[in-house]
Amino acid sequence: MSKPNIVMIGAGNVASHLAPAISEAGAGNIVQVYSRTMDSARSLAGKLPDAMPTDSLRDIRRDADIYILSVKDDAIPQIVGALPKTSALYLHTSGSVGMEALAPLSDSFGVFYPLQTFSKNVSLDMKSVPLFVEGSTPEVEAQIREFGERVFKSVYHADSEIRKKMHISAVFACNFTNHLWTVAENQLAREGLPFDVLRPLLEETLRKAFVNSPSASQTGPAVRGDRNIVDAHLSMLNGTEKELYRILSESIMGKQG
Amino acid sequence: MSKPNIVMIGAGNVASHLAPAISEAGAGNIVQVYSRTMDSARSLAGKLPDAMPTDSLRDIRRDADIYILSVKDDAIPQIVGALPKTSALYLHTSGSVGMEALAPLSDSFGVFYPLQTFSKNVSLDMKSVPLFVEGSTPEVEAQIREFGERVFKSVYHADSEIRKKMHISAVFACNFTNHLWTVAENQLAREGLPFDVLRPLLEETLRKAFVNSPSASQTGPAVRGDRNIVDAHLSMLNGTEKELYRILSESIMGKQG
Repeated sequence: MSKPNIVMIGAGNVASHLAPAISEAGAGNIVQVYSRTMDSARSLAGKLPDAMPTDSLRDIRRDADIYILSVKDDAIPQIVGALPKTSALYLHTSGSVGMEALAPLSDSFGVFYPLQTFSKNVSLDMKSVPLFVEGSTPEVEAQIREFGERVFKSVYHADSEIRKKMHISAVFACNFTNHLWTVAENQLAREGLPFDVLRPLLEETLRKAFVNSPSASQTGPAVRGDRNIVDAHLSMLNGTEKELYRILSESIMGKQG
Repeated sequence: MSKPNIVMIGAGNVASHLAPAISEAGAGNIVQVYSRTMDSARSLAGKLPDAMPTDSLRDIRRDADIYILSVKDDAIPQIVGALPKTSALYLHTSGSVGMEALAPLSDSFGVFYPLQTFSKNVSLDMKSVPLFVEGSTPEVEAQIREFGERVFKSVYHADSEIRKKMHISAVFACNFTNHLWTVAENQLAREGLPFDVLRPLLEETLRKAFVNSPSASQTGPAVRGDRNIVDAHLSMLNGTEKELYRILSESIMGKQG
């Protein structure tokens, strides 16, 4: 399988970044793009040299080497039910669906999960996105890994259990931190200040966390054990903000758990 | 005061970024650098075209136009006690000390607080750092602002009360988020994965927060109201991590406060 023929099933945020990255890396020929709507299928196929669009599951080619299902999690069973069994390699790109969902389609199946948040019109350096793979057998996983390494710099093994735990870590590192930025945004707005005043500080905090590590980069009153400042801040806060400040400071001071 | 003569008192992280930025912007001549140790004074003075180093408070020149105290908060009273009263402008760069600490030195005094975390050997785009100023009179504040605008793109007014609140916001936005990254780092380490796997996701999350706003960019199971995922995650967590997950998710879902 020197340059496999690939059918991309889905034309959403992940597919619209992944398909061009595969094509540009020379890792495969995307020969067909399926989407529920012809407009989306055409839009993505138009960015790929060899791809034909379709909005009909029945018209999906049966002679491809790799099928990549990049659709919403709850659409996977319906797609699987509509496809014939072949000897091709079937992959999905979901972080939260087990690879067994693809078992009805082939003996060769697995997961091809790029850990990133994709927006359709924002270009990204796909090479730098870490890819997590799992295969139905060690041989299939080696094949998936080899294919992945043509597109991504860092490829890791992750089974369902590890993917679930990574999702939790991403919730802490991204969703929860974004919420804390929202808290700060609201606090600053009450003083008539834009969230942008924190931008240089935030970018530098992120930079430092990756130069050393977050644990080695912790600063602030809690890690210094500065009870005076922590108490002064608590006395200026109310409600949820106070509760968040208290529990996060205690967690930093290691007094919980 | 077209190009004021400036004495920089202190040669630490803030001073060693601020003094060259003032000099390079042509906002003033740094004529002298004081530090408790001659090595530090020499090291910073060596980066400035007109500055002489000193480690003696008694040798600080009395004929400068502006004195900038950029020392640790608790060193300010001692420095103030050792300096004579003149008609110059006295500034400190602390976010948490009231400007009145400088009142014994002159009728013209104020705060010159750049909101950033500085490391001595890491260069920064100082122009982009937001500067917060306060002056002993409206005229003095106008003078401080004019001086600040020669070095910084964004200059805001902030009295002690606003600076305290900004500090709280910075604790939420930087210290607490760094702690959540530490939690994620520990979780990933338990799976044998480096924190770096989250880097593209984190950088994209930060980028989105500034393109729109953090409140408009919130993603994840809590904001979707996806109780199944939230409960599944809680069942996989223990101790402090579980407590943090619970309270942060509830805060996102707006069920607290």
